[in-house]
Amino acid sequence: MSVLNGEKMTNSTKQVNVAEECDGKCGSCSTSDDCNDHRKQQYEQEQKLKLRLSKIKHKIAVISGKGGVGKSTVTANLAMAFVMQGHRDKVGVLDADIHGPCIPKMLGLKGQTLIGGPGGMLFPVTGKLGIKVVSMDFVLPNDEAPVIWRGPLKMRAIQQFLSDVTWGELDYLFIDLPPGTGDESLSVMQLIPDMDGVVIVTMPSEVSQAVVKKAVTFAKQMNVPIIGIVENMSGFVCPDCGAKVDIFRTGGGKKIAEDLTVPYLGSIPIDPNICTDSDNGLPFIAENKTSPATKAFMEIVEKIQQFLENTETARSKEIKNENMCKCNSK
Amino acid sequence: MSVLNGEKMTNSTKQVNVAEECDGKCGSCSTSDDCNDHRKQQYEQEQKLKLRLSKIKHKIAVISGKGGVGKSTVTANLAMAFVMQGHRDKVGVLDADIHGPCIPKMLGLKGQTLIGGPGGMLFPVTGKLGIKVVSMDFVLPNDEAPVIWRGPLKMRAIQQFLSDVTWGELDYLFIDLPPGTGDESLSVMQLIPDMDGVVIVTMPSEVSQAVVKKAVTFAKQMNVPIIGIVENMSGFVCPDCGAKVDIFRTGGGKKIAEDLTVPYLGSIPIDPNICTDSDNGLPFIAENKTSPATKAFMEIVEKIQQFLENTETARSKEIKNENMCKCNSK
Repeated sequence: MSVLNGEKMTNSTKQVNVAEECDGKCGSCSTSDDCNDHRKQQYEQEQKLKLRLSKIKHKIAVISGKGGVGKSTVTANLAMAFVMQGHRDKVGVLDADIHGPCIPKMLGLKGQTLIGGPGGMLFPVTGKLGIKVVSMDFVLPNDEAPVIWRGPLKMRAIQQFLSDVTWGELDYLFIDLPPGTGDESLSVMQLIPDMDGVVIVTMPSEVSQAVVKKAVTFAKQMNVPIIGIVENMSGFVCPDCGAKVDIFRTGGGKKIAEDLTVPYLGSIPIDPNICTDSDNGLPFIAENKTSPATKAFMEIVEKIQQFLENTETARSKEIKNENMCKCNSK
Repeated sequence: MSVLNGEKMTNSTKQVNVAEECDGKCGSCSTSDDCNDHRKQQYEQEQKLKLRLSKIKHKIAVISGKGGVGKSTVTANLAMAFVMQGHRDKVGVLDADIHGPCIPKMLGLKGQTLIGGPGGMLFPVTGKLGIKVVSMDFVLPNDEAPVIWRGPLKMRAIQQFLSDVTWGELDYLFIDLPPGTGDESLSVMQLIPDMDGVVIVTMPSEVSQAVVKKAVTFAKQMNVPIIGIVENMSGFVCPDCGAKVDIFRTGGGKKIAEDLTVPYLGSIPIDPNICTDSDNGLPFIAENKTSPATKAFMEIVEKIQQFLENTETARSKEIKNENMCKCNSK
């Protein structure tokens, strides 16, 4: 049953040809082939999801407490940064903002649609930037169409975006989540248990700070590593006279990171080009290679890479130790 | 069963002492007093909601497609504007952003809690500004606590905020909704069928424009009148040299209003004082009475008042016509 094909979800489930003692473990069931119980569908969906995710080396979610802090801009530019460093066609972006998907516009993919294949398979959209993208925007008939969905449908859509999409072998998958700690965020964290970590984006204003704390607690409660906090829209330098104006204040991101003892990744200054580039479908780091915003962003990327390398080293050590234990116990 | 008291929702329902032929119309049922069926609870909740809402003259929701466009700032200042025009203690704000409630901080009410009374009654928080406020923030133990809730719990909380809160006689209730067209927005529109209308807030960037179109369609599909579109963060004037810099571009709000043939209410320029005032818990229109942002905002307020007056005149005419029809038919 597909949400994306417009079919309705229902709580009723059919149970046909199922022995009372079914334990839902279809892999070891002798009558699995003839079974059409809902638990088999669920089992197959889970297996598909596991298989897809096993081919993706690193999964990073970009979250925030408050909306409009530049989460999608950070996601789009993170993806671009890794492409520019040699991972072309090996970077994916899952736009998990069901109600307000912005990634296609920011990556120059407006107007594209998600093409389906046999068996409910879906192909991600890949533009000239070499980034594989999946977004609700590719499913909607036009910009005006709102997605007036409650939680369960959104959860289902995100699940399909992960398990039915042929992401292929990826080095990095970035997931752009809508603000808040509701259905979408919960679903993504539950569907991807081996998430490398989350990047938390905030603005320097105190109002944003109050809300970003919730995002930090959310990640901790979900047992997802926090890669660090990024402060966006930090200060503004007048292009005419060079005066520095703190439109949304400055330094709040660093303060909150210190207060909550989580890593601080850096701050990105306000730059009108960022907005223009986003509107034109071009990540600003590719368009304005020498701007202070790009410089600041690339320093953030470096820290994220460092985090991922450390995680990889730790994982390799773990595997080595496990193997050694096995050898010793023989 | 109260969500706000921390009890869990459940889909199971008890049916005790209920005749099979129950039609859920408890008002005309002779055994209603001894009944504890779930339909009776629902009926009572609906009656309570109707009673509360009947005492509120005007209900206005502030919505947006994208987050971070200044919805809460607009809501807080709208409430302040009506207080300044003689409606002190007759203006309420329902902060329906369950995951990222900002209204308490913006109206200087941080750290307050929602006090409960007999029969599950809740009292709104009223600070020195004379605005009655209800927010999830008043229920949480601290800033760090996230609300990791899926849709049904959020719907339930909003329902309680409307029906269990002793709003009293109000001239205006402003509802600050989170971005998007999901559970919270849907719930509010369904719970308040006689909404006067919605104010839609946007930013001038094209990325925001694409998403605001969805909010317009949402309001149209829900049959809620659109009071108009407000463009926030429109242009920036350097306080040092007077140069005008369009950080997030400008004019997009007006264009979208024209394209979608909905009223355009005006644009609010970027002003660093707005952020500082919000952080200090003071609506900027009360703090900076002569600033261009305040001037622009008060023109928007005037248009909203005009809309409400027109609605009221139309309603009076309707009632008069209905009465005349009744007289004629006698």
